[in-house]
Amino acid sequence: MNTRWMVVGAVALAAAGVLIGRGSKPSGTVTAPVAAPAGLPADAAGMVQARQLSPQDVTAALATYMPTGRYDDYLMFASGGHSGQMYVIGLPSMRVLRVIAAFSPDSWQGYGVGVKESALAEAQARDAGLRPRSLTWADTHHPALSETQGDYDGQYLFIGDKANGRLAVIDLRDFETKQIVTNPIFNNNHGAAFVTPDTEYVIESSQFAVPLDNRYAPITEYQQAYRGLATFWKFDRAAGRLALDQSFAVELPPYWQDLSDAGKLASDGFVFINSLNTEMATGGIEEGNPPFEAGASERDMDYLHVINWKKAEQVVAAGKVTTMKGLRVVSLPTAIDEGILHFVPEPKSPHGVDVCPEGSHIVIGGKLDPHVTIFNIRLIQQAIANQDYEGKDPYGVPILRFDAVKEAQVEIGLGPLHTQFDNQGYAYTSLFLDSSVARWSMGDCKYQAPEGPWKLVEKLPVSYNIGHLAAAEGDTVNPDGRYLVALNKWSVDRFPSLGPLLPQNLQLVDIQPPGEGMRLLYDMPMGLGEPHYAQIIKADKIKAWDVYPEVGWDPLTQAKSPHASYEGKVERAGNTVEIWMTAIRSHFEPERVSLAKGDRVIWHITNLERTRDATHGFTIPGYNVAASIEPGETVTVEFVADQEGVYPYYCLEFCSALHLEMAGYFLVAPPSAVGAPKLAASAADETTSG
Amino acid sequence: MNTRWMVVGAVALAAAGVLIGRGSKPSGTVTAPVAAPAGLPADAAGMVQARQLSPQDVTAALATYMPTGRYDDYLMFASGGHSGQMYVIGLPSMRVLRVIAAFSPDSWQGYGVGVKESALAEAQARDAGLRPRSLTWADTHHPALSETQGDYDGQYLFIGDKANGRLAVIDLRDFETKQIVTNPIFNNNHGAAFVTPDTEYVIESSQFAVPLDNRYAPITEYQQAYRGLATFWKFDRAAGRLALDQSFAVELPPYWQDLSDAGKLASDGFVFINSLNTEMATGGIEEGNPPFEAGASERDMDYLHVINWKKAEQVVAAGKVTTMKGLRVVSLPTAIDEGILHFVPEPKSPHGVDVCPEGSHIVIGGKLDPHVTIFNIRLIQQAIANQDYEGKDPYGVPILRFDAVKEAQVEIGLGPLHTQFDNQGYAYTSLFLDSSVARWSMGDCKYQAPEGPWKLVEKLPVSYNIGHLAAAEGDTVNPDGRYLVALNKWSVDRFPSLGPLLPQNLQLVDIQPPGEGMRLLYDMPMGLGEPHYAQIIKADKIKAWDVYPEVGWDPLTQAKSPHASYEGKVERAGNTVEIWMTAIRSHFEPERVSLAKGDRVIWHITNLERTRDATHGFTIPGYNVAASIEPGETVTVEFVADQEGVYPYYCLEFCSALHLEMAGYFLVAPPSAVGAPKLAASAADETTSG
Repeated sequence: MNTRWMVVGAVALAAAGVLIGRGSKPSGTVTAPVAAPAGLPADAAGMVQARQLSPQDVTAALATYMPTGRYDDYLMFASGGHSGQMYVIGLPSMRVLRVIAAFSPDSWQGYGVGVKESALAEAQARDAGLRPRSLTWADTHHPALSETQGDYDGQYLFIGDKANGRLAVIDLRDFETKQIVTNPIFNNNHGAAFVTPDTEYVIESSQFAVPLDNRYAPITEYQQAYRGLATFWKFDRAAGRLALDQSFAVELPPYWQDLSDAGKLASDGFVFINSLNTEMATGGIEEGNPPFEAGASERDMDYLHVINWKKAEQVVAAGKVTTMKGLRVVSLPTAIDEGILHFVPEPKSPHGVDVCPEGSHIVIGGKLDPHVTIFNIRLIQQAIANQDYEGKDPYGVPILRFDAVKEAQVEIGLGPLHTQFDNQGYAYTSLFLDSSVARWSMGDCKYQAPEGPWKLVEKLPVSYNIGHLAAAEGDTVNPDGRYLVALNKWSVDRFPSLGPLLPQNLQLVDIQPPGEGMRLLYDMPMGLGEPHYAQIIKADKIKAWDVYPEVGWDPLTQAKSPHASYEGKVERAGNTVEIWMTAIRSHFEPERVSLAKGDRVIWHITNLERTRDATHGFTIPGYNVAASIEPGETVTVEFVADQEGVYPYYCLEFCSALHLEMAGYFLVAPPSAVGAPKLAASAADETTSG
Repeated sequence: MNTRWMVVGAVALAAAGVLIGRGSKPSGTVTAPVAAPAGLPADAAGMVQARQLSPQDVTAALATYMPTGRYDDYLMFASGGHSGQMYVIGLPSMRVLRVIAAFSPDSWQGYGVGVKESALAEAQARDAGLRPRSLTWADTHHPALSETQGDYDGQYLFIGDKANGRLAVIDLRDFETKQIVTNPIFNNNHGAAFVTPDTEYVIESSQFAVPLDNRYAPITEYQQAYRGLATFWKFDRAAGRLALDQSFAVELPPYWQDLSDAGKLASDGFVFINSLNTEMATGGIEEGNPPFEAGASERDMDYLHVINWKKAEQVVAAGKVTTMKGLRVVSLPTAIDEGILHFVPEPKSPHGVDVCPEGSHIVIGGKLDPHVTIFNIRLIQQAIANQDYEGKDPYGVPILRFDAVKEAQVEIGLGPLHTQFDNQGYAYTSLFLDSSVARWSMGDCKYQAPEGPWKLVEKLPVSYNIGHLAAAEGDTVNPDGRYLVALNKWSVDRFPSLGPLLPQNLQLVDIQPPGEGMRLLYDMPMGLGEPHYAQIIKADKIKAWDVYPEVGWDPLTQAKSPHASYEGKVERAGNTVEIWMTAIRSHFEPERVSLAKGDRVIWHITNLERTRDATHGFTIPGYNVAASIEPGETVTVEFVADQEGVYPYYCLEFCSALHLEMAGYFLVAPPSAVGAPKLAASAADETTSG
């Protein structure tokens, strides 16, 4: 070995060496000073005047600022809307901590751009033909954290794709998507994802009625041939995967189901789904028909669907199903006959169904009606037992008598949508048209609000046109109170004009005891996507890995990879060249890969690092490959080298002082080139330079 | 017309009507209270104690908090690294205001997922075969705002793609990418994008040496056959496009060029490019050679490339070029003969070249040398005129004598990289290994720092391992001072552990007058991508549109679209069905599109709205289409309806109270279906429901 380069290399390594083999802060840095005692700066009043901050502004600033190295109390997992991804936002600082790539490629995370060990690649291969196209995006709406006994357990995250009828499973040990499932018989959803209290099932319910099993029927056959569907995906927690063969679905009338929520405690075993087009309008404004927006809004009542999923489980186990493309379906007639499905009238094109923490009450947002309507599960169960019906729908589904099951209605304002809960006896409902959050008091509840039950207590203006809201642990059996986030749809004038596409505005609200009122804390522009809903979890419930458990890890299987390697090597078998490459600061091995045009390449890269944050990236110019390789991870890229030329591969993630030098050459010779290598790694006749 | 639905429709519209036709805040909302007078809240001290905030924390909180409806002073345009996008971040609040989709698809913005009027789609079609694959991502590093007389003019933004040798042009009237250009003869870059002071040219210089014109040569022929390239892309501001046929390039030796910067004022007409592998190391650790990280680090000096681009322009105009794939190239021998190219020795594998505001001095970060080295353009020009050489490189390029052109060196610490400037005579250089920002005083400058010239004044620790830094207007002829952002590469322990892939940490720094020292204000986690560099511009220089100038606008051409339509209609010609659809709250027209499997679909959608924030989205389940249609915009989607079934299309962007009802049915009948439509929109025999 060349001693001169060893000396130079050692110097270089030493220079970079401050980063090698260290678990946390690099040495050689100027350490942060010991924290100063708490207190106001001398010129605080002057600063406040200079920036014209009101006392409320100052309160909010002091409540949300996060000093360097301090961690947020809560993590908000928010959907990305039609970005197809998930976002993790810290509360109260309202900073985006990271994006989780769910359904859309993300080259920063090395997802869906050439790496084989990818849920997206796996799903695309499996689903060829099930949907018209290979899908590279999604419309993500309602994330669900996995629950144990109705509390967030911090292990898994589920998110649905409204636009294509899919679900994704995210593992919170490494915050990566492990599985995408596609509903085999229905191409859209909205009431997804929601989980039963021990995450036995992940619920996916449809929105727009279509014929089951991807069949065609003309719109004239809407009532006969179009249906809705509530799918119960079985979650195998040990495997971390949804299992189609253990899942089942219940056929529903074509009512454009809306949102879902699972019962818990008092209502454990039930799922509630609202609907908005029981008119069965089919649009056609161009023909002189009422447009959907009018046709679907005519009736004063639509139908809350009450599904007994534990009973449905038994019906499925008894074999009373039709299996379509591997999914066992309980038909609508069977669901009626077996007493699985009942309807409750709900006003009016509602949007939003939320079960209170004790499971005893189900809250509906009226949308085109100014009330929240609260149903009592005990009354529902009684009405079912007593067959206390006000009639049946055209399909024969029994409709429970409204007054028999309604406990209360509270008039709160224009456009009530979604409800969350705290630990003081209050519920919080978003008012889309009033651009407000309404706080009102629950009744018949563990916590007794001083105002008494079923009263509107307060309204907080938000900017503007709020959709969902999310409270800290606010849809579990144990809400935390403290914070609420208003997921506003229109930002209008809240942020500077940066073109015709505006961000959404997520506003952090402090839920104070009454008398002090709710307090707006922070406007967070959301210009990455459109979070529809979110789940807010105590940050310390998340136990994520800092590095992968061992070197040579396959994140997709969460196990040792068969392609792991501790040293670089290249092997050729016929026209296939297989490379096992290692990455460690600051070099790849090998640094040269030579082959001929037309060769098939299988390229594995293992990150040998054990230090937190020592990610390496990998790309080959022009071959559309982007890998992000975390400490211990092994990835595989496969392609045919069908264009000759010289391609410098390099590390994408700035890893060290000599990051720019962390590179190699991928050399694709024309088949007839003089000296075209017989062996992929032969360098016998290549001389070193310099 | 059905009067009943008109009444219902009117009610629905009235309910939603608060949002129709309004220019700013919706009526019917609770208006925000009149701003309270400035001042500290009564319990400020208590709050500070409760959160254990130090006086520095409080100062930072008060300096960065942005009350609802107040706008940031500055906008930071940051690259996304290997996410392939751009980010717009407000200062001092450090909030991500929006993502700009540059090279990677982004379904939230409707970029690259089915919409035809897209720079990405255009580039993919044009470049078929130029690179081995169609590209769906990029490695974006250095954004450049367009300049007029060396100042940001707020009109355009340019960004390079290191991984594939490309540039993108973004129009800041609507913050959308209008053009992607691909270097026809070189597949990677790093010194991109940088602009000459009137944006005559956008500079793209290579990093990894390869043979020009995408040819193959074995690594053994590195010195003979591999080259670098500095490309000068001509910007046609009237067209808002880079013009290949008016561009030119200069061939360089294979030295792994690093970063570029354009001269201005005193150095106008020059471009400076550093390099890091003048050793011409070719790696091969697997063969027992020094790895690149050692082999490229041996020499004490590399070469700063000094290119006289105005002279090069003349040489090109005189025809002394070779044209390769439409790009006129000045060969290395010609560049030498014509006096276009000179070298200046620079220590040591440097990273970073920055021209001071007056253009008089060029600052190099030593990277493996602990100095910044400052060259003087006047001395450079003298040395060129006097042929004051210390020799020539192996290719015959004259090397100016180091001591003749070096004005000063300042020892600042370990790992100096990049430099920015303020308006008080100071320069700020990032220290990667010291994890610090060094403030040092310039000499021979309009502003005279009290400490005297060429002195290290102060170092501020940052967390951790800073790459670039960006100061407010800090690379223009008129820096603002005030703020600086440290673009740190490693966050380590600054944020909660959310898996093995960590965010970067962008830290906002207040540049105070000396004596008070630099002050750290805010840690911003960056978990969307990896910003390498950014440009910070005064927010009021941006004059973006709120809506498109007229209904029926094509953002790609920034003109009226030939496909605009004010009413919905459908036409069939043979097997092609063309749809002109309108979108306005809350319906599409038409709401039904019926055709047969195999028909070709051309679908135009025009957003008729004139209200700010009234964006509508559009998708068809399973067909992988995601459009975001801003007020006035027209988009086109084309595909073959090759899978029969029933597909509900709907609005993706939450637009109104009746957003969920804004939908339609796309019906693809089997060719032999009874009643398969002859005319696409025939509904003569379709009866209305309800």
